[in-house]
Amino acid sequence: MTGIAGDLLAALPEGTVVLEPDRMAGYRWDRANDPDAGLPLAVVRATCTEDVQETLRIAHRHRVPVVPRGAGTGLSGGSSAVDGCIVVCTERMRAIEVDPATRTCTVEPGLLNAEVKAAVAGHGLWYPPDPSSFEICSIGGNIATNAGGLCCVKYGVTTDYVLGLTVVLADGTAVELGGPRLKDVAGLSLTKLFVGSEGTLGVVTRIVLRLLPAPRPPSTLVATFGALGDATDAVLAITRRLRPSMLEFMDRPSINAVEDATRMGLDRAAAAMLVIQSDEPPPAAGEEIATIAGLCKEHGCTEVFATDDPEEGQAFVAARRMVIPAVERRGSLLLEDVGVPLPRLGALVEGIAGIARERDLEIAVVAHAGDGNTHPLIVFDPSDADQQGRASAAYGEIMDLAIGLGGTITGEHGVGRLKRPWLGDYLGPDALALNQRIKDALDPHGILNPGAVL
Amino acid sequence: MTGIAGDLLAALPEGTVVLEPDRMAGYRWDRANDPDAGLPLAVVRATCTEDVQETLRIAHRHRVPVVPRGAGTGLSGGSSAVDGCIVVCTERMRAIEVDPATRTCTVEPGLLNAEVKAAVAGHGLWYPPDPSSFEICSIGGNIATNAGGLCCVKYGVTTDYVLGLTVVLADGTAVELGGPRLKDVAGLSLTKLFVGSEGTLGVVTRIVLRLLPAPRPPSTLVATFGALGDATDAVLAITRRLRPSMLEFMDRPSINAVEDATRMGLDRAAAAMLVIQSDEPPPAAGEEIATIAGLCKEHGCTEVFATDDPEEGQAFVAARRMVIPAVERRGSLLLEDVGVPLPRLGALVEGIAGIARERDLEIAVVAHAGDGNTHPLIVFDPSDADQQGRASAAYGEIMDLAIGLGGTITGEHGVGRLKRPWLGDYLGPDALALNQRIKDALDPHGILNPGAVL
Ligand SMILES: Cc1cc2nc3c(=O)[nH]c(=O)nc-3n(C[C@H](O)[C@H](O)[C@H](O)COP(=O)(O)OP(=O)(O)OC[C@H]3O[C@@H](n4cnc5c(N)ncnc54)[C@H](O)[C@@H]3O)c2cc1C
Ligand SMILES: Cc1cc2nc3c(=O)[nH]c(=O)nc-3n(C[C@H](O)[C@H](O)[C@H](O)COP(=O)(O)OP(=O)(O)OC[C@H]3O[C@@H](n4cnc5c(N)ncnc54)[C@H](O)[C@@H]3O)c2cc1C
Repeated sequence: MTGIAGDLLAALPEGTVVLEPDRMAGYRWDRANDPDAGLPLAVVRATCTEDVQETLRIAHRHRVPVVPRGAGTGLSGGSSAVDGCIVVCTERMRAIEVDPATRTCTVEPGLLNAEVKAAVAGHGLWYPPDPSSFEICSIGGNIATNAGGLCCVKYGVTTDYVLGLTVVLADGTAVELGGPRLKDVAGLSLTKLFVGSEGTLGVVTRIVLRLLPAPRPPSTLVATFGALGDATDAVLAITRRLRPSMLEFMDRPSINAVEDATRMGLDRAAAAMLVIQSDEPPPAAGEEIATIAGLCKEHGCTEVFATDDPEEGQAFVAARRMVIPAVERRGSLLLEDVGVPLPRLGALVEGIAGIARERDLEIAVVAHAGDGNTHPLIVFDPSDADQQGRASAAYGEIMDLAIGLGGTITGEHGVGRLKRPWLGDYLGPDALALNQRIKDALDPHGILNPGAVL
Repeated sequence: MTGIAGDLLAALPEGTVVLEPDRMAGYRWDRANDPDAGLPLAVVRATCTEDVQETLRIAHRHRVPVVPRGAGTGLSGGSSAVDGCIVVCTERMRAIEVDPATRTCTVEPGLLNAEVKAAVAGHGLWYPPDPSSFEICSIGGNIATNAGGLCCVKYGVTTDYVLGLTVVLADGTAVELGGPRLKDVAGLSLTKLFVGSEGTLGVVTRIVLRLLPAPRPPSTLVATFGALGDATDAVLAITRRLRPSMLEFMDRPSINAVEDATRMGLDRAAAAMLVIQSDEPPPAAGEEIATIAGLCKEHGCTEVFATDDPEEGQAFVAARRMVIPAVERRGSLLLEDVGVPLPRLGALVEGIAGIARERDLEIAVVAHAGDGNTHPLIVFDPSDADQQGRASAAYGEIMDLAIGLGGTITGEHGVGRLKRPWLGDYLGPDALALNQRIKDALDPHGILNPGAVL
């Protein structure tokens, strides 16, 4: 075989290059299911940094686009294939080394977030970032999207735990940035620049993560509200004074979708439900939960249930984590990820409800409320062209609403391909141009994940 | 007046441009007292973003170097003037607005760190990063150096608290990055790129900081050790399991310099002293301190003193903060800032003691031990050329030692001008080239802080 495919086969170990259209189909879409996803020329299932380097050298020589791919759970089309690209998939790069003395681990990008958590837990350590998808997403994808999650409200997002990276640049050069040093300001903050770069600046092949001692078992509170505004006011009252380790929000459609799936006895009539945890050491956790219960009552909650049994609490967290899959049973989804400054959370969720009414759509809202980060899930029937049109209009209107409220078009999922049309509106021309300057400096031929972000 | 000075005078408000050599002398050096500091052409005491923009437009047109300057407390020559430069000083940009609802504040760069802390404390809030110099350094300088401090071991460094920045680029364009949104992944992580860029990519003129609820009063433990290695072993035993809110180290020369200055009764014979705090809610703080006391005893400490009286604890923290000024009384200083992975801390401090013996120098070591970040303070008499020569040889040897131990040449002070010769050794050619590519993309004519970092 000649040409690019031949070069790849010649340069890479056996079993690494996939060329069969059938097998490649599994690497064309992420969870956004972009109907415009292209046809790759090849999929490289890399086993090590050198495989990625070889691939990028070949891509660079031929000016072929490269789409980096982790586990494909992304929600904004960041890893959907483009026509004639090489997909570089990290699923076989799964090594991890835990160093309890430095309280760090060094991990390859293909390991799943849950596997990282489990490996470090074996040493009494904890990797906090916990996207809802933690059992199915890769740590490399988390780095590339600067993934958030449920514990971020207290423990921060992915970037806060990344001490070092190996990245393969567009021309195949591998660069080591940072390392297992807790503080290091020598040179520009390039590690942080690559976190959240969504595969547009380089391919991450090795990650050094900062770890914490094992978390304490949390106490949990669940509160239901008769009005959306009461729930968001309660969120504000809580975040103003306290640091819960989780502060999640579900609206009525979310609650009902989960109840349909689980029959666990959630209050179907509630307008909103908050799931809140405290992991302070006892008795402080109980006190914090009691204070939070008081604040919820002050803000008109209809019911509150508290438990310091971690198992019992876990059932509610599991319910929260179920929202996306549960709503997915009701139709196809357009998944939003807008965030606002906390005081605008109420205006955002009320505004989304308004868009749902006007567009005659079901939109379920689940939120990392303590961070002001919401996930409106727009349900549509793909065989109903009119509804699909209204859904995609609502998708844009929700981003416009968020921008109007001083918010962002994406709090944690990334811009990918689906949100790219709104990035300029959000950033403004000067910040957009600055993004482009960095991109051009690092990827002058634009081969890395073209069409994503910029 | 014509030329550059004339352009500045014409473009900027009265009282903003300083041209008198006498007055400019106050803006030539930072605390590193670099003897090679140059003579500025003008000092601009900017009052707002527009002043900085005007200045940079003029500098850009004339290709004149610009040295951004905060309070001049830097320890690596990052704000020392270069010949014919314009120093842009932020000391008059001091506005702050605190928003308790979003738990953020928006601040101009010239406000001192202590003033930021005080302003937000008025709203029951807390800005954690606390360089020892917090009463004299500017928040803009903290952003530009990604400053660390004493509470970083639990609460992280400056970058962890920066949500947004306004930066003026080399050509005078002002760009707003981020804002009061707790999570935002729209576009590249440019806010984080500017943090720690030491004035080489742009001038920071506005900062949005994330705040926490007021901290709890800490419990404090002080432990003395007869051997350096015992103290560093204790540090390792502590960080492996616990998250104290402070974990500081002083060696014998540091203890003695502080005792000379304060007569507070420190143990002059101790080889090392640890100052440790816990801010867990009671009774957990007391338990944590007791566990730590146990670990110190296991590692052969000679004495331990614990108190939950915050005032009493504060006296020891003040002693720790005094180390640099106290050692400064003993001569001129070359201030180091090397950091290593925690298990190498013992090897580092023993190695430094070895260098002191071999070079026949007094080197006091104070450290943010829980982060592996040490400050060897090399004392010399500037009138003794031979000693000065040995001091500057030791300065390099300590960085080489740190690099050899897998450590960094600077944990928090920055590369500035003094550590630039070592940056390439530390980063290696590929990472250095990557730094240079970013620099060239954002400052193609190299007018921003030339000679610093790169
Ligand atoms: C049910 C569900 C719940 C979710 N909940 C959350 C949540 O709570 N928080 C959250 O943040 N996200 C959430 N997500 C989104 C998704 O899981 C995250 O974005 C995750 O980080 C993607 O990881 P991945 O391995 O699947 O990456 P992919 O989808 O394969 O890729 C994501 C992006 O990263 C790039 N990329 C992947 N690997 C690399 C690499 N090694 N080097 C360079 N670029 C790379 C890709 O090009 C793409 O742009 C959820 C998704 C689902 C399906
Ligand atoms: C006694 C003592 C103790 C110290 N302890 C610590 C410590 O514990 N932790 C720590 O991190 N540091 C410490 N330092 C070092 C110093 O205080 C910090 O580096 C501080 O962040 C510098 O702030 P500054 O305002 O004085 O900046 P300057 O010294 O004026 O400048 C520092 C750097 O930042 C750049 N800069 C300043 N303002 C801006 C701006 N607005 N935009 C762009 N670039 C800018 C300058 O060009 C320069 O490169 C200590 C210093 C002293 C004297």
